[in-house]
Amino acid sequence: MTEAASKRAVVLLSGGLDSYTAAAMSRAEGFDLFALTVRYGQLHSCELDAARRVAHALPVERHVELEVDLGAFGGSALTGDGDVALDQPPDRVGIPSTYVPARNTVLLSLALGWAEVLGARDLVIGVNALDYSGYPDCRPEYVAAFERLAALATQAGVEGASFRVRAPLVHMSKAEIIRQGHALGLDYGLTHSCYVPSTNGQPCGRCDSCQLRARGFAQVGVDDPILTV
Amino acid sequence: MTEAASKRAVVLLSGGLDSYTAAAMSRAEGFDLFALTVRYGQLHSCELDAARRVAHALPVERHVELEVDLGAFGGSALTGDGDVALDQPPDRVGIPSTYVPARNTVLLSLALGWAEVLGARDLVIGVNALDYSGYPDCRPEYVAAFERLAALATQAGVEGASFRVRAPLVHMSKAEIIRQGHALGLDYGLTHSCYVPSTNGQPCGRCDSCQLRARGFAQVGVDDPILTV
Repeated sequence: MTEAASKRAVVLLSGGLDSYTAAAMSRAEGFDLFALTVRYGQLHSCELDAARRVAHALPVERHVELEVDLGAFGGSALTGDGDVALDQPPDRVGIPSTYVPARNTVLLSLALGWAEVLGARDLVIGVNALDYSGYPDCRPEYVAAFERLAALATQAGVEGASFRVRAPLVHMSKAEIIRQGHALGLDYGLTHSCYVPSTNGQPCGRCDSCQLRARGFAQVGVDDPILTV
Repeated sequence: MTEAASKRAVVLLSGGLDSYTAAAMSRAEGFDLFALTVRYGQLHSCELDAARRVAHALPVERHVELEVDLGAFGGSALTGDGDVALDQPPDRVGIPSTYVPARNTVLLSLALGWAEVLGARDLVIGVNALDYSGYPDCRPEYVAAFERLAALATQAGVEGASFRVRAPLVHMSKAEIIRQGHALGLDYGLTHSCYVPSTNGQPCGRCDSCQLRARGFAQVGVDDPILTV
């Protein structure tokens, strides 16, 4: 592996606030970023527009967009099966209707494939175990299990390499994430978080994702730029 | 989980001889099969035709075909990056040019997502550690690591379920696989194995896959039906 290759990281970029921040933190650590955005059957395309804006702003070396229709399996409100719950207390117990079965495993597998081709050993994902405590594949023990699998799954692993899954936000609150992003000079006006945007791309303000985002900005004491433009 | 759901299995069906046999073995054990065929950027589409024939013959409850363009990452002759090696001794040491980075991890992740939606706990994959000793993601230790990940990755796992990755061919030679298939009455004339078929879908006879298949039929002492039609 060349030294150049050792500083590459594949980042999963959704267009949301979390993955933007996680990617920027890795860039600040000196990584060249290769961004992967997967359209897995979400209901709307403004996430993809946001991912492109964020990829351009970071910037990244390359941005690959991949289509994987997880909606073919059903089972999630996020891919069109049932309704996204609105006006729920975001701290409630249980797995939300927007959970997409095995989503992060699919996303990390794709990132791993690309990383092996690039000679990269680092995958970056903006998962968070606090705000999304209901999602099994956002927990630290899940991330560690994927690292163990990655070593066994790849040619690079057979040759002795190990892969790291960087999940720098895993223990941070939304407010801490936003403070971190501001310290890095990020423009959150580029991002999109809402699960059920209106036709003009405006956030609904009522889904879990909008509520968590609003609470984070309120705790930091600043306005969310996507609400003030 | 209902009793009906507990007998469901998601099988990865490529259209080749191995996955057909693995699926049929699970069916003989009493599973209702849900077949997943992923077009991940292979060079040719006759595999898909074969997968449809096999799915119909087994039969399966449902057959989902999914497009995932792993060719976007490059790095494999099987997805168009470089040439498939011909006339190589199939027992040589090392990872062949047809290795697709993280392929089985991507395939099993997708199968896991569907299994969770279906209430299935069994995934079936026709990997084989003998004939494909160069592929890291065909080894028993890889399969075991995926099972551990699956329990952590899913809502079902959080609720105490465990997933099994059935890889019934993992220790079998190609000849043993063919004998097993014959005992189950399988028609291998439906299948397709060649990495580089001619435009009319005929096998090349020179790639690893063709050579392993030919040797298997020779050891069993029967003609390969795809060569005698």
